[in-house]
Amino acid sequence: MLTSKRLSIEEAEILMRGAADEARRMGIPMCIAVTDDSGQLIRFDRMDGGKISSISIAIDKAFTGAAARKGTHVYNQLCVPGEPTFGIHVTNGGHFCVIGGGLPVTVDGQVVGGIGISSGTAIEDQACAEAALNHFREQTGYRP
Amino acid sequence: MLTSKRLSIEEAEILMRGAADEARRMGIPMCIAVTDDSGQLIRFDRMDGGKISSISIAIDKAFTGAAARKGTHVYNQLCVPGEPTFGIHVTNGGHFCVIGGGLPVTVDGQVVGGIGISSGTAIEDQACAEAALNHFREQTGYRP
Amino acid sequence: MLTSKRLSIEEAEILMRGAADEARRMGIPMCIAVTDDSGQLIRFDRMDGGKISSISIAIDKAFTGAAARKGTHVYNQLCVPGEPTFGIHVTNGGHFCVIGGGLPVTVDGQVVGGIGISSGTAIEDQACAEAALNHFREQTGYRP
Amino acid sequence: MLTSKRLSIEEAEILMRGAADEARRMGIPMCIAVTDDSGQLIRFDRMDGGKISSISIAIDKAFTGAAARKGTHVYNQLCVPGEPTFGIHVTNGGHFCVIGGGLPVTVDGQVVGGIGISSGTAIEDQACAEAALNHFREQTGYRP
Repeated sequence: MLTSKRLSIEEAEILMRGAADEARRMGIPMCIAVTDDSGQLIRFDRMDGGKISSISIAIDKAFTGAAARKGTHVYNQLCVPGEPTFGIHVTNGGHFCVIGGGLPVTVDGQVVGGIGISSGTAIEDQACAEAALNHFREQTGYRP
Repeated sequence: MLTSKRLSIEEAEILMRGAADEARRMGIPMCIAVTDDSGQLIRFDRMDGGKISSISIAIDKAFTGAAARKGTHVYNQLCVPGEPTFGIHVTNGGHFCVIGGGLPVTVDGQVVGGIGISSGTAIEDQACAEAALNHFREQTGYRP
Repeated sequence: MLTSKRLSIEEAEILMRGAADEARRMGIPMCIAVTDDSGQLIRFDRMDGGKISSISIAIDKAFTGAAARKGTHVYNQLCVPGEPTFGIHVTNGGHFCVIGGGLPVTVDGQVVGGIGISSGTAIEDQACAEAALNHFREQTGYRP
Repeated sequence: MLTSKRLSIEEAEILMRGAADEARRMGIPMCIAVTDDSGQLIRFDRMDGGKISSISIAIDKAFTGAAARKGTHVYNQLCVPGEPTFGIHVTNGGHFCVIGGGLPVTVDGQVVGGIGISSGTAIEDQACAEAALNHFREQTGYRP
């Protein structure tokens, strides 16, 4: 039997606070999604002013971070015509997102969830996701 | 120019707390979604133990409550083979949900959002959504 | 070679005015769609206050009226479990609508377009579609 | 409670007239869509001769202009393989359009709707959308 660890709703709340605090610092109201290790949604917030088109992008970024176990920005660099991974952006029913801003949440080398941010540029979204992960590690003491 | 009112993220949080408190009283971990007046997601929580299949059901119930401006249980009673509204459950790309547990959130007779609950029976989900609305009205003083 | 007649944008406008006038008489802000003989959209209006969930329903009703060449209410009566036509409501990628309010627009026995109405009950939507057709025939002199 | 402004059907009509007049000047029958601030369709016209494949493209352009709050031509320049935003064209269920011809409609710095044009080249579609916006501002006196 396999045992898996996954984020609780309380731990998703810690990630959410970390992301929202950073978004406020940046002055960009964000859509923020947190999934479990299977990429299934646990928590979502659209901050007042977050973009409508970013709702599903944030959820897809969190799914991709958890399910593919890599930052979505990594796939952005791989998903270039002529490169072997090109085409991955249209898989999974269009839910595989290759725009930066999605990250796996790891604890002791294991993926326990994903976080996805959208409403800024890809660079801003990724910075916000990283700030959320840092906040999560400081608050929980978990090691990546 | 038309002017519309919609729930803020803080008001979505009040609905969320009302729903989660009732879910705990019921002993059923729920998926809870809150949308704006156009049915677009503002907030989502999957309580620890909430069903995977209920993630999209809760979101679709909240969409339907807001966008169709009626409780999803009302459409459940109308969407019976031979009745004129049968078939509405497959419209809107499959996102029109006719299972009880979705309600519009109204303030002074205007729809400002929607709430959708899923993981229990349709009856339990609806009771939980109603408890959330009651809590929202007590806390905010808004009248339906 | 086949020759087909189809509504022009000006004729769609006549149907639209007929529908909107009737909707105002009813006191129900409607979503109104007009398609050509292939079921492809020519014209759409969401009156101020029309339901968000009715946008795609109105378009699907107009498609069905034109493409299947029958009123959607006719299919509503046929699409009952155990009857031979049951299941048609999930065909065409979910765009085959069996809720009353969609009608073919015929001229001299030929389908030249479709009209679909949504935001009221199925009965109200159908009455509004019929009023639009009557207005169209009065204004244009075309015979069904 | 948040308050938002959105285009009325009469204001959508002004945009529509501006776009259709420009399309006639260009000699290109266009598909023209106008949405509210959430990207939900208010008004659609397919001019006689407009392309069938442009129906959904015009609607998706108007959605993107409103929901992402940028011109679709801006995303066209960003959505290049190897650039961080590549992949955004397949998000939102394939409804995020990165072809020029979609613009947000802003009033006093706030997005109140979107307009999308399709049937010409991307350059022609964009020019037609811009002409529609100029006409809208002249007629209404609203400032961007």
